[in-house]
Amino acid sequence: MLEELKKRVYDANMLLPKFGLVTFTWGNASEIDRESGIFAIKPSGVDYEKLKPEDMVLVDLDGKVVEGSLRPSSDTDTHVELYKAFADIGGVVHTHSSYATSWAQTGRDIPCYGTTHADYFYGPVPCMRVLTKEELDAGYEKNTGVLIVEEFKRQAIDHLAVTACLCKNHGPFCWGKDATDAVHCAVVLEEVAKMAYRTELIHPEVKPAPQYLQDKHYFRKHGKEAYYGQA
Amino acid sequence: MLEELKKRVYDANMLLPKFGLVTFTWGNASEIDRESGIFAIKPSGVDYEKLKPEDMVLVDLDGKVVEGSLRPSSDTDTHVELYKAFADIGGVVHTHSSYATSWAQTGRDIPCYGTTHADYFYGPVPCMRVLTKEELDAGYEKNTGVLIVEEFKRQAIDHLAVTACLCKNHGPFCWGKDATDAVHCAVVLEEVAKMAYRTELIHPEVKPAPQYLQDKHYFRKHGKEAYYGQA
Amino acid sequence: MLEELKKRVYDANMLLPKFGLVTFTWGNASEIDRESGIFAIKPSGVDYEKLKPEDMVLVDLDGKVVEGSLRPSSDTDTHVELYKAFADIGGVVHTHSSYATSWAQTGRDIPCYGTTHADYFYGPVPCMRVLTKEELDAGYEKNTGVLIVEEFKRQAIDHLAVTACLCKNHGPFCWGKDATDAVHCAVVLEEVAKMAYRTELIHPEVKPAPQYLQDKHYFRKHGKEAYYGQA
Amino acid sequence: MLEELKKRVYDANMLLPKFGLVTFTWGNASEIDRESGIFAIKPSGVDYEKLKPEDMVLVDLDGKVVEGSLRPSSDTDTHVELYKAFADIGGVVHTHSSYATSWAQTGRDIPCYGTTHADYFYGPVPCMRVLTKEELDAGYEKNTGVLIVEEFKRQAIDHLAVTACLCKNHGPFCWGKDATDAVHCAVVLEEVAKMAYRTELIHPEVKPAPQYLQDKHYFRKHGKEAYYGQA
Repeated sequence: MLEELKKRVYDANMLLPKFGLVTFTWGNASEIDRESGIFAIKPSGVDYEKLKPEDMVLVDLDGKVVEGSLRPSSDTDTHVELYKAFADIGGVVHTHSSYATSWAQTGRDIPCYGTTHADYFYGPVPCMRVLTKEELDAGYEKNTGVLIVEEFKRQAIDHLAVTACLCKNHGPFCWGKDATDAVHCAVVLEEVAKMAYRTELIHPEVKPAPQYLQDKHYFRKHGKEAYYGQA
Repeated sequence: MLEELKKRVYDANMLLPKFGLVTFTWGNASEIDRESGIFAIKPSGVDYEKLKPEDMVLVDLDGKVVEGSLRPSSDTDTHVELYKAFADIGGVVHTHSSYATSWAQTGRDIPCYGTTHADYFYGPVPCMRVLTKEELDAGYEKNTGVLIVEEFKRQAIDHLAVTACLCKNHGPFCWGKDATDAVHCAVVLEEVAKMAYRTELIHPEVKPAPQYLQDKHYFRKHGKEAYYGQA
Repeated sequence: MLEELKKRVYDANMLLPKFGLVTFTWGNASEIDRESGIFAIKPSGVDYEKLKPEDMVLVDLDGKVVEGSLRPSSDTDTHVELYKAFADIGGVVHTHSSYATSWAQTGRDIPCYGTTHADYFYGPVPCMRVLTKEELDAGYEKNTGVLIVEEFKRQAIDHLAVTACLCKNHGPFCWGKDATDAVHCAVVLEEVAKMAYRTELIHPEVKPAPQYLQDKHYFRKHGKEAYYGQA
Repeated sequence: MLEELKKRVYDANMLLPKFGLVTFTWGNASEIDRESGIFAIKPSGVDYEKLKPEDMVLVDLDGKVVEGSLRPSSDTDTHVELYKAFADIGGVVHTHSSYATSWAQTGRDIPCYGTTHADYFYGPVPCMRVLTKEELDAGYEKNTGVLIVEEFKRQAIDHLAVTACLCKNHGPFCWGKDATDAVHCAVVLEEVAKMAYRTELIHPEVKPAPQYLQDKHYFRKHGKEAYYGQA
């Protein structure tokens, strides 16, 4: 069932160690088939070296396993919430990539210091507050997803213009039109987090890039007026 | 004698350069056969490229060489003390991995800033005080082990919940159920040390993760209620 | 048309991922044929893994595509301005290499802290101011080039003695006698930016190297009295 | 003439890119045949990828080329001074390795923060003052060597106990019993410089390791009481 989806999700997961975003079994990628409302996700705690396409677990939007002999990623319920709220995304990735996670551990948003950031993310990459003990006890992974969705709404952030966030004391979640696109976003986020870190160490009083430069670069790559890349 | 043990310890030692934890001959891994009370350990000052399984030295819990033509690691007496005091561990690893050693050189514990840390270590990774000149003269390597054991007791740290420590001005010791598990711990410790370093540079006033989040992540992976990984 | 030029520019572009200067499709290298006034440049947004020599786009000094089915790099107009103003250069490279871009994001020049810098760049590597909104709206990429040329003139910097600059909130541009030489410059700039960053973190009050030492090293490698390398 | 020496020096030079200590043509290693008073050294400005054993240049202790069609390293006169003054060394290496050069650019000695340092260097790795304009004009490379020798004498540093130094605003020189041993020293120096940098960023008020711990580790590996490694 959904063999091609499982193969694509397997391929996307295998990009995570290739791009140096994960250690051991950390991290997970998923992709949804919107027609059936079923997504494929990496099984929990399995080494990338031993992973096979058929190990991908199929899960529905109630978080129930539809197919697969292995337990799905422990972060599955976060993926569910993102797929339910962001109806126009097709893939989700979670990693503990080193620089993005270091930012997440501080609770700070990543400011937009330049065009590398502005080319992909329109405005700062926001860091969520930490869950309360009550939210955590009531469903840690589910409420992580609920919080992301609520914060994007509260801060009026377009989730297609900022396709990533940080979860405080935890790490980044990224999304995109499919699993590969979400991995791509996770790679860029790590580069952006690395440069922002170095930028602040070189010049602690640095300010974000001017808004009109952020606009220019973002809309050079996105929307009707875009002229980056091939038509 | 104990050929399989020697092979396993050889394999674990060879993971140290693979994971970028050692330079030249630095570092050592050992594993104990609890039935006979004998452990296998890397010989002292031998290049990893030239190491062979039969070079592993067998040592008893009095620190005496039982088999092997080479001198065992100069840190052997530290391994002895850990095996004697922590009866439920099976492997020990010592490295000079770059970030963990940098923390050790400062004398600071590594605070728990997030779930990458909490998934593996329950609370800060403690840094031991430096040995006094008297302790050092009386037996440097043995007293390094004695100090670790005493400090874990004094600070009431469960050595199965925090499977690593830093020795001031020296570097980390890690342990686990076998040698491979201890290497795994050394890799995670290095990642955690790296992220904690970056976290403090991004936000010097950062606080540790809330205790309930640390609890959640640690017990998601450890103990009866664990639900990470495959059953 | 100009097949050898396209092959050389392809080769130079392929050095960018080899030296770790680019992620995904970022960065671009070009080289000009001064006789015809035509330069070859990487197409916009094409993966390096899929790039072929025949994909290089030929552009004239009015910025018009002369040959090629793909859209040229979005930074093409900046290359045009540099080729027009600096008549004695043959190649231009733009990257988002991590350390140089971090400096660019701060708006600071890279001071000359030692001979690694002085061997290649005579004086600081200057960081341009950010374009005004008016300049940006009137032609972002063209005015980026115009600004570089004007600033080198205003600050009386010899563009053959300082073959690189930073564009604020963006990244570095480098040039040289051909595309490969410009890539070489981009690699050195990244090393120099990395060392300057670490130098300031080790000693925040550090001063630039004495001018006579900068002179010595620069003229050891450049000009009539040079004695570095083979005659 | 001295074909084996040239082969050994070639091999040692090729270790420099292998260990990540050099970029492009930077750096050089030499080894002396004490009987004839002739040393082999890398030619100036030749790419490591194109280097061949027969390219090594033979030079005597007056700095004159004895054999070889290529120009010797521009740092040759520094090697000469070290070989003349330190009669018991056999190899010299100069690099612009990133962390050691960053320390050199600050003018600071590298303090001994732990046993990784103490295992190899007895006390801080000293940074030389910068040459005066007069010293530089009178013979830059020769006077670089003269200064190193004088400073070790003035500070009463045993050049066999501290087999490396930093030259201000330039980079490290290392030495050993042969060229390979000097490369080994350069690798360790880079690791030590990296850890010292991180140590100070983690804890700006950090103090050097206690002297008795430095003694213990240095003499665990060096001299009559050494017990590290195989007899």
